[in-house]
Amino acid sequence: MADKPKKPQKLRARLPRGLADRGPAEIAATRAMVEKIREVYERYGFEPVETPAFEYTDALGKFLPDQDRPNEGVFSLQDDDEQWISLRYDLTAPLARYVAENFDALPKPYRSYRFGWVFRNEKPGPGRFRQFMQFDADTVGAPTAAADAEMCMMAADTMEALGIPRGSYVVKVNNRKVLDGVMESIGLGGEENAGRRLTVLRAIDKLDKFPIAEIEKLLGLGRWDGGEEGKGDFTKGAGLTAEQIQSLAAFLTYRPAQIVPLTGSDGVVEHKMKTVVLLENGETEFRDPNNEQTIANLMLLLPSHQLVEQGIGDLSAINEILQSCEYGDRVLVDPSVVRGLEYYTGPVYEVELLLDTKDEKGRPVRFGSVGGGGRYDGLVSRFRGEPVPATGFSIGVSRLQAALTLIGQLDNKPQPGPVVVTVFGGDIAGYQKMVATLRQAGIRAELYLGNPKHSLGQQMKYADKRNSPCAIIQGSDEKAQGIVQIKDLILGAELASLEKDRDEYLKKQAEAQFSCKEDELVAKVKDLLQRRGVVWQ
Amino acid sequence: MADKPKKPQKLRARLPRGLADRGPAEIAATRAMVEKIREVYERYGFEPVETPAFEYTDALGKFLPDQDRPNEGVFSLQDDDEQWISLRYDLTAPLARYVAENFDALPKPYRSYRFGWVFRNEKPGPGRFRQFMQFDADTVGAPTAAADAEMCMMAADTMEALGIPRGSYVVKVNNRKVLDGVMESIGLGGEENAGRRLTVLRAIDKLDKFPIAEIEKLLGLGRWDGGEEGKGDFTKGAGLTAEQIQSLAAFLTYRPAQIVPLTGSDGVVEHKMKTVVLLENGETEFRDPNNEQTIANLMLLLPSHQLVEQGIGDLSAINEILQSCEYGDRVLVDPSVVRGLEYYTGPVYEVELLLDTKDEKGRPVRFGSVGGGGRYDGLVSRFRGEPVPATGFSIGVSRLQAALTLIGQLDNKPQPGPVVVTVFGGDIAGYQKMVATLRQAGIRAELYLGNPKHSLGQQMKYADKRNSPCAIIQGSDEKAQGIVQIKDLILGAELASLEKDRDEYLKKQAEAQFSCKEDELVAKVKDLLQRRGVVWQ
Repeated sequence: MADKPKKPQKLRARLPRGLADRGPAEIAATRAMVEKIREVYERYGFEPVETPAFEYTDALGKFLPDQDRPNEGVFSLQDDDEQWISLRYDLTAPLARYVAENFDALPKPYRSYRFGWVFRNEKPGPGRFRQFMQFDADTVGAPTAAADAEMCMMAADTMEALGIPRGSYVVKVNNRKVLDGVMESIGLGGEENAGRRLTVLRAIDKLDKFPIAEIEKLLGLGRWDGGEEGKGDFTKGAGLTAEQIQSLAAFLTYRPAQIVPLTGSDGVVEHKMKTVVLLENGETEFRDPNNEQTIANLMLLLPSHQLVEQGIGDLSAINEILQSCEYGDRVLVDPSVVRGLEYYTGPVYEVELLLDTKDEKGRPVRFGSVGGGGRYDGLVSRFRGEPVPATGFSIGVSRLQAALTLIGQLDNKPQPGPVVVTVFGGDIAGYQKMVATLRQAGIRAELYLGNPKHSLGQQMKYADKRNSPCAIIQGSDEKAQGIVQIKDLILGAELASLEKDRDEYLKKQAEAQFSCKEDELVAKVKDLLQRRGVVWQ
Repeated sequence: MADKPKKPQKLRARLPRGLADRGPAEIAATRAMVEKIREVYERYGFEPVETPAFEYTDALGKFLPDQDRPNEGVFSLQDDDEQWISLRYDLTAPLARYVAENFDALPKPYRSYRFGWVFRNEKPGPGRFRQFMQFDADTVGAPTAAADAEMCMMAADTMEALGIPRGSYVVKVNNRKVLDGVMESIGLGGEENAGRRLTVLRAIDKLDKFPIAEIEKLLGLGRWDGGEEGKGDFTKGAGLTAEQIQSLAAFLTYRPAQIVPLTGSDGVVEHKMKTVVLLENGETEFRDPNNEQTIANLMLLLPSHQLVEQGIGDLSAINEILQSCEYGDRVLVDPSVVRGLEYYTGPVYEVELLLDTKDEKGRPVRFGSVGGGGRYDGLVSRFRGEPVPATGFSIGVSRLQAALTLIGQLDNKPQPGPVVVTVFGGDIAGYQKMVATLRQAGIRAELYLGNPKHSLGQQMKYADKRNSPCAIIQGSDEKAQGIVQIKDLILGAELASLEKDRDEYLKKQAEAQFSCKEDELVAKVKDLLQRRGVVWQ
């Protein structure tokens, strides 16, 4: 195989769209994040479980938002036995399969967490990947609002464990039942209206992105992308009447709670969650968030319907726990939260960062959602034929990592590199022995493994690129004397920027390269590492 | 969505073949392993890098063994733009693409490690999965034997870091050039014989599984699975002549070094690597492994050919470094090592565990290979059109984990569960507040989230199943008094097996459930955890 003839044309080295490689800083940051999230989840009594990347396509189900063609959004292929298998698009659908398969053996409620890559066969865009990491926790077999409240509190604790200060994030909670009840009350109930309900859901989900007038177009006949008729793409609307749209006032005109931008005296814009208070004169006022007030607003604004009442009842029960555990200032009821996934059946939650970032036109926008979840009482039942209540929460690790990098909570500094032992001429085995000795002492070290004829300059350039704290040099003269030279590359870099004081320069120069006996190598390198504060993590 | 009609038929919850779920003990064991491997690799100066699960199919290339049909062995699908993409089948081919794509920005030599799932679309079998974990290290841009020697030493250090004692594993090293040279010397050179060379390679790769006579059939006309003509499946042979087969004596008849079973005086069979010494009377003798002797044997037995000499030269250079660094007793030259992947061009290595396990018939067999690698000078060159020497090593994490479990080096004990706060009647918010207080004190705790009407018995059963150290109970009487009951479940379990001494029993019974004031809860639970030695990891 050593001497196969060269192929005439060379391959292009590139990744398929929407995929990315990750370097040391990103990997270290993810690892640190994952450990912190894990610590919180385990404190909450969740235990780890992992499922593989593939599932039977029918077991995953079709719950992704905005997927009109079958199989769109999912990577699927046919197995040898003709059955379709798909890469998981989230960590919830596989968990439902796992729980159903191991139902009798598992403790119930079954509290578990897992993290890993998920795959979406979607059009990639800026910050939108086809492979990304999620970190989920789920409680299966828990019917009450206490389980939902816990998820929200855990989300808040996780944000703070990751270094996001209180006030810079909000956990928003709502209930799908509320919206379902409203839709039934305006004649959108029943299987025959499932499609229209989904269109309404998605329109409301866009409340954060579009002004109300645009949302109303999506609820009515439809909306042209370009701003006016015939311009850009057309999105067909839900076809609601003006009266029906009016009934959605709680979500549109008043929005009992919402995130508003506040400009401080210093001109800095801050986003805060506020509760809207309806004044007696018919005007509204933003006040500090207050779940009881938000719930009272909802009751006032929403049509009377059994599902609406149930939904509001759940929200009240959740709020009672939040207040008792003192999370009422961070976990806030927001009726505009709907979540895109189709499988939710009750409370839904979303963690939003209030941090400012810039949009593509340089305008400040808030960072947005980094996780969410909700109750999905039907997902395990599909396999079991009996009701299995469940609720869960998912963190978008990749997205949250981008946010943490933005606020400087992640250390993106390169790690110090290894000690590099340089090579002169033949005695490779002798140099490798030096490296082995350093390694046995717990020091990260390596032999220069490029062409051994490379000059010292080339080898030092490599050591610099590796961010090495020091290099070891032994030419034939030193070898004959049984000594080695140690070159302090950290001090060396400082020297390069030092000019003023000649005496100082000469003193440091002497310090920056010194010799020692071969058998003192480990001790001298350890001294140097300590002197320069080199700590490998 | 809350009230969708139930589907008439329920789904079956099951995984596609060759895939597996993983529970807490397995996940913890993998994590511990990965950390230990990482520590060794970083000490050797390797830095992390990650590539995604998908690559363009042409970038991965077709290097899997035993794949005669195109695309067999790999999960592939067509992307939206009609291009074929595949899930990675190893971590080496993606690294080659990564290095080629980022060539100018990377330090050279580029030393990196990575671990993750790889996918093979193969027929699954016992212990053979379609998704498994590998942990790789590679040095790209390193042309000399020093890089190969380093890989072998690192493999040895990794085994010991994982708790596999010296003598229970061997790192075997060989050189593809040796075999390539032999094949050229017997007329199997050139592109037109590529297929036959591959057949020879695979036959020799089976030396560990079959007796020599069977290997000779595979080198000759072919072999019937069932032991005689017409019985079982037929594997077509390489079609070599008797004379050609004779020339492979070094690999067949003599095998200069090999692993042999040794029965001790206690009847226990141990496997050890031995060097074969050719005595003057033509007989052979097994001696303690000695790379110089093995290399001398090879020179004696192999036909003279330029590639053979180069190959032996590389092995000598590797051995010189091994001796200098004192790894000569663990990293041993074994000419029968070929490795299945097609892309190797020079030194190849394999880590084999000498531990005994049982085969399907209960006979002791050695555990076998848990990792390997080699030099692949052509893999990056495919993209670059210039020579890019590279060498790498891959650990089969999943397989090694099975081995470590076997020798008891992995802790498979279940972790202690969380403290469970039980629930009586209405005041869920109050119970959840207790849980929040425990969690804030760093204690793993949870509220019983099953149906709140479940009896105390049902809730205690749950706590037992969770392996909880204690349960917290507060009925309405206790609540009125501002106290809680703490039930010590570890002592409780001991009590159940204690009968003899009535006084002792009563004393322990009192200790196993006691009450305290609500505001003493954290301190009392902490005491109990310390008393029972509960440490969460």
